[in-house]
Amino acid sequence: MTAPPQDLPHIAARMADIAPFHVMELYTRARQLETLGCRVIHMEVGEPDFPTPEPVIAAATEFIRKGDVHYTPALGIPPLREAIARFYQERYGVTVEPERIAVTAGASGALILALGLLIDPEDRVLLPDPGYPCNRHFVRTFEGRPQPLAVTPQSNYQPTAAQVEQAWTPRTRALLVGSPSNPTGTMLDGRELAALAATVARLDGHFIVDEIYHGLTYGCDAETALGISDGVFVVNSFSKYFNMTGWRLGWLVLPKTYVREAEKLAANLFISAPSPAQYGALAAFKPETIEILEGRRREFQARRDFLLPAVERLGLRVYAAPAGAFYLYADSSALAPDSFKLAWQLIEQAGVAVTPGVDFGAHQPERHLRFAYTVSREKLEEGVERIARFLGQS
Amino acid sequence: MTAPPQDLPHIAARMADIAPFHVMELYTRARQLETLGCRVIHMEVGEPDFPTPEPVIAAATEFIRKGDVHYTPALGIPPLREAIARFYQERYGVTVEPERIAVTAGASGALILALGLLIDPEDRVLLPDPGYPCNRHFVRTFEGRPQPLAVTPQSNYQPTAAQVEQAWTPRTRALLVGSPSNPTGTMLDGRELAALAATVARLDGHFIVDEIYHGLTYGCDAETALGISDGVFVVNSFSKYFNMTGWRLGWLVLPKTYVREAEKLAANLFISAPSPAQYGALAAFKPETIEILEGRRREFQARRDFLLPAVERLGLRVYAAPAGAFYLYADSSALAPDSFKLAWQLIEQAGVAVTPGVDFGAHQPERHLRFAYTVSREKLEEGVERIARFLGQS
Repeated sequence: MTAPPQDLPHIAARMADIAPFHVMELYTRARQLETLGCRVIHMEVGEPDFPTPEPVIAAATEFIRKGDVHYTPALGIPPLREAIARFYQERYGVTVEPERIAVTAGASGALILALGLLIDPEDRVLLPDPGYPCNRHFVRTFEGRPQPLAVTPQSNYQPTAAQVEQAWTPRTRALLVGSPSNPTGTMLDGRELAALAATVARLDGHFIVDEIYHGLTYGCDAETALGISDGVFVVNSFSKYFNMTGWRLGWLVLPKTYVREAEKLAANLFISAPSPAQYGALAAFKPETIEILEGRRREFQARRDFLLPAVERLGLRVYAAPAGAFYLYADSSALAPDSFKLAWQLIEQAGVAVTPGVDFGAHQPERHLRFAYTVSREKLEEGVERIARFLGQS
Repeated sequence: MTAPPQDLPHIAARMADIAPFHVMELYTRARQLETLGCRVIHMEVGEPDFPTPEPVIAAATEFIRKGDVHYTPALGIPPLREAIARFYQERYGVTVEPERIAVTAGASGALILALGLLIDPEDRVLLPDPGYPCNRHFVRTFEGRPQPLAVTPQSNYQPTAAQVEQAWTPRTRALLVGSPSNPTGTMLDGRELAALAATVARLDGHFIVDEIYHGLTYGCDAETALGISDGVFVVNSFSKYFNMTGWRLGWLVLPKTYVREAEKLAANLFISAPSPAQYGALAAFKPETIEILEGRRREFQARRDFLLPAVERLGLRVYAAPAGAFYLYADSSALAPDSFKLAWQLIEQAGVAVTPGVDFGAHQPERHLRFAYTVSREKLEEGVERIARFLGQS
């Protein structure tokens, strides 16, 4: 947490609790080194390096060319909501009515919508720590209170039903989890999701599941919480598996009773999600797109399969198998006591950018680094080699 | 205000204060009538009917084709921030440093950013009534309290400095105005802007000015609050003058001291604004684009010049000259005591869609209708004729 600048005449109190991404400062330094001619290996960025799939480009371009780029209905164009519903049917065998799907500007828009609908001031929201840094800031934005739940390798860096039950307070309103998780890549299986959903329902709370890394799982498939209950809120995105980050498109699946309220809130806060992205995404589920994406998924798997043992050979420890996303969350304490300092040494002295644990929470952040395998195998090899050299291992 | 559905297990309290747009229900009915084969004249929609200008389409298409549609810096790509700064210099002769410009997903994103930065729970925000309906909902979203300020034709439907001073309370934090205003199309001139800015500064508050209808002014130019003070927050958009509604792109100009905090909040809430829109907008300031836009501005003026006297001939009264935007705010009380009922009669019996005053606030909404001249002159003529027939005038 950083205090706002002293020279500001006034700023909302929430801003004192909204932290910048430390990784962005590392990234800025990396870019600066690059302008000086240095070659930096980027293992800090949570963004696939792949271009938008060609069929999506073609669909978006065809739409834009007509010039008719106007607002859409607040919850998205009907054919896209229908296509997402079909995707749930085909990929998971789960029936989700199109009207329960709100198309949003990225998962960011979906999280704003879900928390705006559910969170009152002082409401607490249970969040696994380590976890996606923005989640606590979304909660704080709506004057809720993030309630961190330390998660450990023993439970695959995921909260257990018993832990949730124990941590729950009269002011706790919701549990928000990611599966696969950022930064750990670990997942909740169907049994675990069902146990969490049942516990939260019994406690009269809301269960929000971030499934934005679905599709990017290796040697296994992720289960959707929608297969377990119609009462959960599921966040998803076209950014990661579909390689559409810059388009800003995602979705929120809501319980049916909340749809009308969500429409009201979305119309007021956003008007609608970007139209070029919505029309482009109509091609995201085509067989030829899925074929491209599945090839990239195999590439991510090959990268993980290289990076995981390589990082362990460097002396870092990955305690829970990262089954999905494109991250390794590694204990760096055998190399250095302070991962934040280590991350800065790695950028300055080895030209390798990785994310320090401090971006993901307060539970042993100083012991951890996150490695993103969002660059080519060749670059990952060079990155590992550079770290080995920095550590005096080669 | 509508209460949330009774069957919801729980919903945030703010949702009871976030009203749906009544016009959306009229619009839905209009679409339904159209599917039945009726021809409806749309004078309810606040969206230009023009396509995206060709140079913007070309720039966006060229960018998308390369496939490199990734996240951008949180406050926007530097060349776009620079282009917007140049636009202020060239059009207004006002110097705005590019780093003070935050590129956002529409003016909606800019309003979220400004109010998220400034508004604490229970803070009051002064809002002209009638005014843009979403403004009070943005304030409420951040747990602030909208404080309506009834504005009348005597002050051109704009607040005066004296009125602001009188209404200010110890909990009032900001004044948010639109110039040109939605729904009235009236403007604040430089002298009035300066008086408001000085008053709000003296009261230790923030002055937020919505300038999204700049460029769409007829026989006069709008003055920007940025020419008066570096301490104001100015919201703008590519939607209206630039005809880029569906792209979802706007911007917020901030006092320099707030930029770093805005960057932190934008990175957390949005990651970045849509990349295709940002690259497309690079062409929005080209001379060939401006030429197209100025032609459309003349067309809007011709529409206004037809519609204003035509509406008055129908027996409605427009008290303050609508110098900008694409709206007429007309007193309909000589025709009917309840404009909401009248709007429904017009859609059902005349096939003409207009917006009832109730969408814009609580100050005499039942006496007013908003007419949008966002359709062709020919359609406007037909709309007027249909209303005349409905009123038994022809």
